[in-house]
Amino acid sequence: MEDSDNSTPSITSLNCPVPLPHNQRIVLSHGSGGKRTYDLVKKVFLSNFETFETSSLNDSAILPIFGKNIALTTDSHVVSPLFFPGGDIGRLAVCGTVNDLAMVGATPVFLTAGFILEEGLEIRVLEKIVSSMHTAALESGVKIIAGDTKVVQKNKADGLYITTSGFGIIPDGITIRGDLAKPGDIVIVSGSIGEHGVAVLTARGELGFDSDVLSDVSPLNDLVAKMISATKEIHVLRDPTRGGLATTLNEIAQQSAVNITIYENRLVVKENVRATCEFLGFDPLYIANEGKLIAIIPPQHSESILRVMHNHPYGKEAAIIGEVKTAPEGRVLLKTNLGSTQILDMLSGELLPRIC
Amino acid sequence: MEDSDNSTPSITSLNCPVPLPHNQRIVLSHGSGGKRTYDLVKKVFLSNFETFETSSLNDSAILPIFGKNIALTTDSHVVSPLFFPGGDIGRLAVCGTVNDLAMVGATPVFLTAGFILEEGLEIRVLEKIVSSMHTAALESGVKIIAGDTKVVQKNKADGLYITTSGFGIIPDGITIRGDLAKPGDIVIVSGSIGEHGVAVLTARGELGFDSDVLSDVSPLNDLVAKMISATKEIHVLRDPTRGGLATTLNEIAQQSAVNITIYENRLVVKENVRATCEFLGFDPLYIANEGKLIAIIPPQHSESILRVMHNHPYGKEAAIIGEVKTAPEGRVLLKTNLGSTQILDMLSGELLPRIC
Repeated sequence: MEDSDNSTPSITSLNCPVPLPHNQRIVLSHGSGGKRTYDLVKKVFLSNFETFETSSLNDSAILPIFGKNIALTTDSHVVSPLFFPGGDIGRLAVCGTVNDLAMVGATPVFLTAGFILEEGLEIRVLEKIVSSMHTAALESGVKIIAGDTKVVQKNKADGLYITTSGFGIIPDGITIRGDLAKPGDIVIVSGSIGEHGVAVLTARGELGFDSDVLSDVSPLNDLVAKMISATKEIHVLRDPTRGGLATTLNEIAQQSAVNITIYENRLVVKENVRATCEFLGFDPLYIANEGKLIAIIPPQHSESILRVMHNHPYGKEAAIIGEVKTAPEGRVLLKTNLGSTQILDMLSGELLPRIC
Repeated sequence: MEDSDNSTPSITSLNCPVPLPHNQRIVLSHGSGGKRTYDLVKKVFLSNFETFETSSLNDSAILPIFGKNIALTTDSHVVSPLFFPGGDIGRLAVCGTVNDLAMVGATPVFLTAGFILEEGLEIRVLEKIVSSMHTAALESGVKIIAGDTKVVQKNKADGLYITTSGFGIIPDGITIRGDLAKPGDIVIVSGSIGEHGVAVLTARGELGFDSDVLSDVSPLNDLVAKMISATKEIHVLRDPTRGGLATTLNEIAQQSAVNITIYENRLVVKENVRATCEFLGFDPLYIANEGKLIAIIPPQHSESILRVMHNHPYGKEAAIIGEVKTAPEGRVLLKTNLGSTQILDMLSGELLPRIC
């Protein structure tokens, strides 16, 4: 940024800005969850908030208090459309925050919800979404205990946005973080990938064809609790949302300074997801999931973990998809079905805006 | 609502709704903080979230955990414009949440922040706002420890919205709630009223004239800590934001099932606020404040509380403005300078949209 003046600008200067180059304005890809989000967070937020955690780092902040570790997290939800096959923004808002807590091993306890409503929104739509949040909260065992409602004029929002924040308690002896992957660990994914993104895309009605893909949006806290009961020695948990499996694995590889190598033939991609992605030129590895997790654990626990996962409705198709190695550090490699090795990068542009 | 079907609607039915009467859609006054907000919260949220707390009830949810009471709260901020005399959306987002925690007697500890950014927003604007949040967090002694960033297309937001959530710890022996006002208690306000609303209105440039009113947006947690050190016997604390002093006093009168009688000649309204309000036909009693509090306490503590308040930069003009009586229950009365008694109702329509 050329303007290094930190004083509050006059309103005049903000209303009549000098035209700025493209790279000095927010673009959709800043919200993709990929490289541009990461860069924005680093540039704008980390310099101001020393301990600022975002989905690019850990899913929740872990904080010691009263001799325990608690987890706090927040997520704004702007998915379009509000209803999509398999879910809606309300279920997404609850599950997204529950899962962010679960990914540091926390038991989710309380949620808060801030609503930004667009003038003209039908109250019955709001009621259906709030009812869906209630159902998801019951399923996850969390209580929604505080809320706020703001209304903005028409065309200053898109129906409604929901920001959920979560409070959870981390059981004693549990330390699960993105920087704890160790060479020799195995990489497990809890099921098939790419469904949420494809379901939302289909719901937009822009494909020119229908698909029967349902979003996988689900609360994963009970699955995580079962996994922790099998072994406390889980190094990393992460839900591959925006940016998909490939981007999330890259974040872990960078945070842990390791290589992660995965095998194409181990990935589960449902036929309808594969077909839609092929048609559109998308790679399921970069499509958002909302009910899947990546677990990185020492190999000796793979059998016990997979056993509890396979017995859980949200882990039935769990599989070992790869392993952690020392080099090339910070990189993710994909061994393809044809036997070649590809570098799997972070998502760099914007694949699907407003997917969550 | 005529449609009592609770199943998820088909996307088609949502995209092509039957035209609804005005009272079945969200209108700006649903966000005013007045009667319509209260009705919406009761109708939509309280039926789904049993312990849902909103600014219409208490400012924060109070929850027992680890043998302590913690406070959790959330607030979405949609103020327009983003910068106004005396503050900006960043300072507002931090102070609003800090104050909601302080109003239940909690020491604010951690905040989270969810950003919804409009495509095209200048990154330098975002940087100035985040820097302002940092300054306000330092002043309040809170840490912003988690965040999230989403981007929506142009005309799907208005620059940016910030949802802040807060975590605080309530000192042992402190119980401050909106339903604890007792007949005989006195009502204190910490200073002059109406500044924030008038400052934001001026910044919109729609008045046809300038005013030199500055928003009072400030963190009140240190003031509250000093008040608690003077006496633990504070019954009610509340910051009169949306809907102003009159609406907030009505909420307290209803929650506590008491009458609150205030005296016009005890209220402090700065001359520039008074002049602007007179010109526009507004009543300062209904204008939002962002750095003032109402305290309701037993009369024997008034001297010690006022002493610490008068020694604090945010309580210098604190004054006793009224008292709590038994009847008429749930009502607020204003004794005017002319000697008459008026019923002071809640804000019923929308006075100033997007004031916070």
